[in-house]
Amino acid sequence: MERVINFNAGPAALPLAALERAREELLDFADTGMSVMEHSHRGKDYERVHNEAIALLRELAGVGADTEVLFLQGGASQQFAQIPLNFLPDGGSADYIVHGAWGEKAVSEAQAAAKWSGGKVRVAATTVRDNQYTRVPNADEIKLDAKAAYLHMTSNETIHGVQFHRFPDAGEVPLVCDMSSDFLWRKTDLSPFSLVYAGAQKNVGPSGIVIVLAKKDFVASGRKDLPKIFQYRTYAENNSLYNTPPTFAIYLVRNVLLWIKESGGLARIEEQNRQKAALVYGAIDAHSSFYTSPVDKESRSTMNVVFRLPSEELETRFLAEAKKLRMVGLKGHRSVGGIRVSLYNAVSLAWTSTLVDFMHDFAKRA
Amino acid sequence: MERVINFNAGPAALPLAALERAREELLDFADTGMSVMEHSHRGKDYERVHNEAIALLRELAGVGADTEVLFLQGGASQQFAQIPLNFLPDGGSADYIVHGAWGEKAVSEAQAAAKWSGGKVRVAATTVRDNQYTRVPNADEIKLDAKAAYLHMTSNETIHGVQFHRFPDAGEVPLVCDMSSDFLWRKTDLSPFSLVYAGAQKNVGPSGIVIVLAKKDFVASGRKDLPKIFQYRTYAENNSLYNTPPTFAIYLVRNVLLWIKESGGLARIEEQNRQKAALVYGAIDAHSSFYTSPVDKESRSTMNVVFRLPSEELETRFLAEAKKLRMVGLKGHRSVGGIRVSLYNAVSLAWTSTLVDFMHDFAKRA
Repeated sequence: MERVINFNAGPAALPLAALERAREELLDFADTGMSVMEHSHRGKDYERVHNEAIALLRELAGVGADTEVLFLQGGASQQFAQIPLNFLPDGGSADYIVHGAWGEKAVSEAQAAAKWSGGKVRVAATTVRDNQYTRVPNADEIKLDAKAAYLHMTSNETIHGVQFHRFPDAGEVPLVCDMSSDFLWRKTDLSPFSLVYAGAQKNVGPSGIVIVLAKKDFVASGRKDLPKIFQYRTYAENNSLYNTPPTFAIYLVRNVLLWIKESGGLARIEEQNRQKAALVYGAIDAHSSFYTSPVDKESRSTMNVVFRLPSEELETRFLAEAKKLRMVGLKGHRSVGGIRVSLYNAVSLAWTSTLVDFMHDFAKRA
Repeated sequence: MERVINFNAGPAALPLAALERAREELLDFADTGMSVMEHSHRGKDYERVHNEAIALLRELAGVGADTEVLFLQGGASQQFAQIPLNFLPDGGSADYIVHGAWGEKAVSEAQAAAKWSGGKVRVAATTVRDNQYTRVPNADEIKLDAKAAYLHMTSNETIHGVQFHRFPDAGEVPLVCDMSSDFLWRKTDLSPFSLVYAGAQKNVGPSGIVIVLAKKDFVASGRKDLPKIFQYRTYAENNSLYNTPPTFAIYLVRNVLLWIKESGGLARIEEQNRQKAALVYGAIDAHSSFYTSPVDKESRSTMNVVFRLPSEELETRFLAEAKKLRMVGLKGHRSVGGIRVSLYNAVSLAWTSTLVDFMHDFAKRA
């Protein structure tokens, strides 16, 4: 069995060690004679895994006792609705920063969800131009409503490859962030955020599990008239065991987090991730008449590198030749085309070098 | 490695064949050089699994072109909220039949969710008595509102072990059913139901995935003012690929469904399930001064057999001795106590015989 070189945008490559452990234990977890997914979510064997995943998240994300670490379902897409349901007070207003497709979706779902509170949703900043996103907004472009219930942002736009490298200052307004493709690949000071959420299927696990890190007082401020399943406090009060969680997905997240820790921790992972991105952008810039990045240099994403070739025909050839070298997942999102290289935690430096060598070679030959 | 005898109520035992296949393919799915959970949910390799799971559900459930087969997240508990959000029209009313804890929760969540439509929720029948549930309601006890937007029922109450063996007649009112612990263990005529939902973690898979079978016209009748992620039509229009689904959970469901089919299909599984239940109830009735079932005979569940012993002390001993014989998952739900034997599809006749032999022996000795 030879593993492919997987640049998928999510679901994405997982660390081999995390998968191997899962395979090893699949029929007999911790000498219990059953798979972890056959255990009761209320039993001590599963609970140990659940709590270890939470403890590792706390440790790696560097969050303290003021922060709840929660497991939810429904993907980041459900968070788009759940956040305004919880945090828009009656007649209140929330601000959104939009610099890509996910920010757009977050606004659209929030507008629908705002019916619950009779509240409204404002776009505090957007960088859209000719239906394209090529940069994050500058600080002076963000027209923040000081009375907003919260400010929502997407720290990295996976489709457009546009990333915040310095987070905006929300002042007294609670800052809420979709970090799905920007989660736990580097040391990040999360103290400015009231709530951060991330689908696991980029940097820390499989699909089917969303991680939420939320300040306790923010959780407590949420609406109480919602169905319990939609209230963050329900998850906080029940250690994310109010109803049956996706136990196997959480187990895999635990395995990935342990791999991060055992590989030298976030500092080491970050160093490697920055090297990877530097390599790919380096290849683009070295052949700037051949590879073009639509993204402004200061907004270039470390996680998702998007670029174009001179023609769609060349892009098709690029993808086909890459595939022959066992590199997959390089096709840009169907809404924008081109090439996208996702460089999440499990993508190795060696894989990236293989790609970059190919990029140099292809540009010279084409 | 010796597998234990697992009577868990859910997450529950999975068929060995389904797990072995998952282990076999965990690092290299279908010769693609990666795990199925590392595949894009938009790629053809994953899509084949996704569509095969849907086709198997159609075949085993016996539903035709008038029915949508959908994958959702959030467990049955999220369906408790999502159903009234979708199907309560402005100022409308929905009826609920309650014969256990899950029906109670469904009502409670629906009452909160009814805020969206300004609608309301009626209990059309409840069999609660002294905080206990021991039977389903009789037909003449169900006071159905002929104008109800839908009638919601729980076909099997997992905690109380109370099951409908003949479904109530809802007349022209759309019938909606939580079948979580009652799904695909027997041939069932689903034609009376407008919508059926089931968490997979009982009879057909791991936790983290909910299967919804819904009539197309019912889906189309749902509210359109909700966030897209909460509308059933969103899943129907996008083959349950609107956002990233829990791909590995769906893959495991596929494996379990294939095992059902290859083990002789639902007819064979049903025969075995009925034998299993007959054995356990037979042991209870053979020692009726020792084992007592609180459930009326005509409402006894084929899936979850609950019973008591003369004292809690004896129950503790029963559980401890069973564990020595490698039988786990027999403790009743914390809210009702006693013993609960869950007899889902993956529980073999041999396992059940081991339990029943032990029950006879224990009763004689105690």
